[in-house]
Amino acid sequence: MKKLSYQPIEWLGDRVKILDQTKLPRELVYLEASRYQDVIVAIKELKVRGAPAIGVAGAYGVAVGTLAIKAKSRESFLNKLQIVIQTIAASRPTARNLFYAMERMSKRAETETGDVVELKQALVDEAIKIHRDEEEGTRKLSEVGAVLIKDGFTILTHCNTGPLATTGYGTALGVIIKAREQGKKVKVFVDETRPLLQGARLTTWELTQAKIPFTLITDSMAGYFMSRGGIDCVIVGADRIAANGDTANKIGTYTLAVLAKENGIPFYIAAPTTTIDVSIASGKEIPIEQRSRTEVAYFQGICITPDDCEISNPAFDVTPAKYIAAIITERGIVRPSFRVGIRKMLR
Amino acid sequence: MKKLSYQPIEWLGDRVKILDQTKLPRELVYLEASRYQDVIVAIKELKVRGAPAIGVAGAYGVAVGTLAIKAKSRESFLNKLQIVIQTIAASRPTARNLFYAMERMSKRAETETGDVVELKQALVDEAIKIHRDEEEGTRKLSEVGAVLIKDGFTILTHCNTGPLATTGYGTALGVIIKAREQGKKVKVFVDETRPLLQGARLTTWELTQAKIPFTLITDSMAGYFMSRGGIDCVIVGADRIAANGDTANKIGTYTLAVLAKENGIPFYIAAPTTTIDVSIASGKEIPIEQRSRTEVAYFQGICITPDDCEISNPAFDVTPAKYIAAIITERGIVRPSFRVGIRKMLR
Repeated sequence: MKKLSYQPIEWLGDRVKILDQTKLPRELVYLEASRYQDVIVAIKELKVRGAPAIGVAGAYGVAVGTLAIKAKSRESFLNKLQIVIQTIAASRPTARNLFYAMERMSKRAETETGDVVELKQALVDEAIKIHRDEEEGTRKLSEVGAVLIKDGFTILTHCNTGPLATTGYGTALGVIIKAREQGKKVKVFVDETRPLLQGARLTTWELTQAKIPFTLITDSMAGYFMSRGGIDCVIVGADRIAANGDTANKIGTYTLAVLAKENGIPFYIAAPTTTIDVSIASGKEIPIEQRSRTEVAYFQGICITPDDCEISNPAFDVTPAKYIAAIITERGIVRPSFRVGIRKMLR
Repeated sequence: MKKLSYQPIEWLGDRVKILDQTKLPRELVYLEASRYQDVIVAIKELKVRGAPAIGVAGAYGVAVGTLAIKAKSRESFLNKLQIVIQTIAASRPTARNLFYAMERMSKRAETETGDVVELKQALVDEAIKIHRDEEEGTRKLSEVGAVLIKDGFTILTHCNTGPLATTGYGTALGVIIKAREQGKKVKVFVDETRPLLQGARLTTWELTQAKIPFTLITDSMAGYFMSRGGIDCVIVGADRIAANGDTANKIGTYTLAVLAKENGIPFYIAAPTTTIDVSIASGKEIPIEQRSRTEVAYFQGICITPDDCEISNPAFDVTPAKYIAAIITERGIVRPSFRVGIRKMLR
């Protein structure tokens, strides 16, 4: 992959630099967080979003939190560290990667035998390693998934799953970018992805950078284009995948999966194995984040609805495994039955 | 129905007053058109929209156009009238009701035997009659359809199909309003309906006026709520219904129909018979209007995408008859097979 002209998340030695995704595509603005509370705000306000990127930001959040801990004993340090980790873990409920990163940071602290100074260094190193691992994971899964993309394919995708969402190659978008780099001619239909328009704002921007031709549509148009026969496959990312393959992803994903099935179009999930949560048997156990009504009611400060009307805003939905043709990970492509395939892959 | 506090279209004797729907719900602004070209602009810019309302506005457009015609002979008058009618008919391509209204105006002129002054009066009278007929049609169909709504139902709807869209009771929304007036407790899920947000702006506003509880959601959330089992039926309007029951309606309708089928939820179309086009055998023959990219790219003058990115904006889609449980009209409820049922009903 060519060097990106933008760096979604960067570690600056004692603080983390984050590209503010809420300002894209009109402005390229970075923020620097030197307190873990600032990282939490950035995650909650979606300045950084996308399951893998949230994991990386969370890990760096622990790193900056770690550096600020005042403790003389190892025990006192670990107690304070747990508060930081638990607070960051509580920032968003659905994406698995954040909890995965918190578990790794926690484990690293437990296994590090040195003093407080050494503990701090070990945790900073671990955060950097989580970042590199996520980058490497999406690089690999993009290569793995690109075999599913044939020359001349038109691909429909939802939300944003490129470098911005992953800090690496991307998941669904990584697969598409990789296929293009392999010389395949591809075209993309991009769902705008209401309410926060990650497709219209971020995926269009990343595809423009990658020089891949695309057509932006509203979410409600995906069915129209699928039924006309112009879509060869649908690829989306994931926020959490249960042991049976049920997949939580950006609201609207389930609808695309049903439409794809109805029209005989393969529906693929692309996600690093850090998104898989084998501790839950099915998607029924995945908590769905309910976000503020203002995300639907307001646009750039302008209210588009009558005042105070009731609005529901679930940020994710769960696509049952039966609609999914394959799950693309850095360790290979899993096909149904997913329960068996996932267990085998992670062994 | 209680007297509305707003009048979507009103004939003022020599000009037509139209509630500018693009300004709702923040402002209640009316425009007055005394030239037929102004009516065309109002239709094209969606200041008046909704298949039945477009038909009524078009008829009044002919009326104001008629009054302005300078002709001494009947022949010269009819020639000029045809230009007015053809120009208005070309303003939007999908909704059947506009063509129906133009055909009625044309026929009225042909059958009127008087002089130019009498012809003008006959055409004004015919426009007023078309308006009354559409009002009466939706009043009746609302009553007909309300039998399908049980006490305690939660109903999902799309776009706007109330008085604003029809000048009368409404089609899909008329059925819901009627059921409420009959004392049934109903709740409504309202799709916001991108790109132009007729659901978020207009249906929410009309439901607020009618004191019917509702929850606004983005189009991408409909599947989530259907899959959770909380939706008892889906009712939408129509822009054109083919002889076999295939139905063109606001983009996103096909998706709702597929989701409803997948979740075992009845999917109803509500439309006056003026929306039915028996001259076409199936939905394949319905022309789908492609509207400007700016409707998707801009919101209240603010661009939400990278500059100049490619956007597709089909305003309608076609729902194949196989997804439709029933078509509700002022002449009764038609169930499959629609080809037979529609023929029988219109006999």
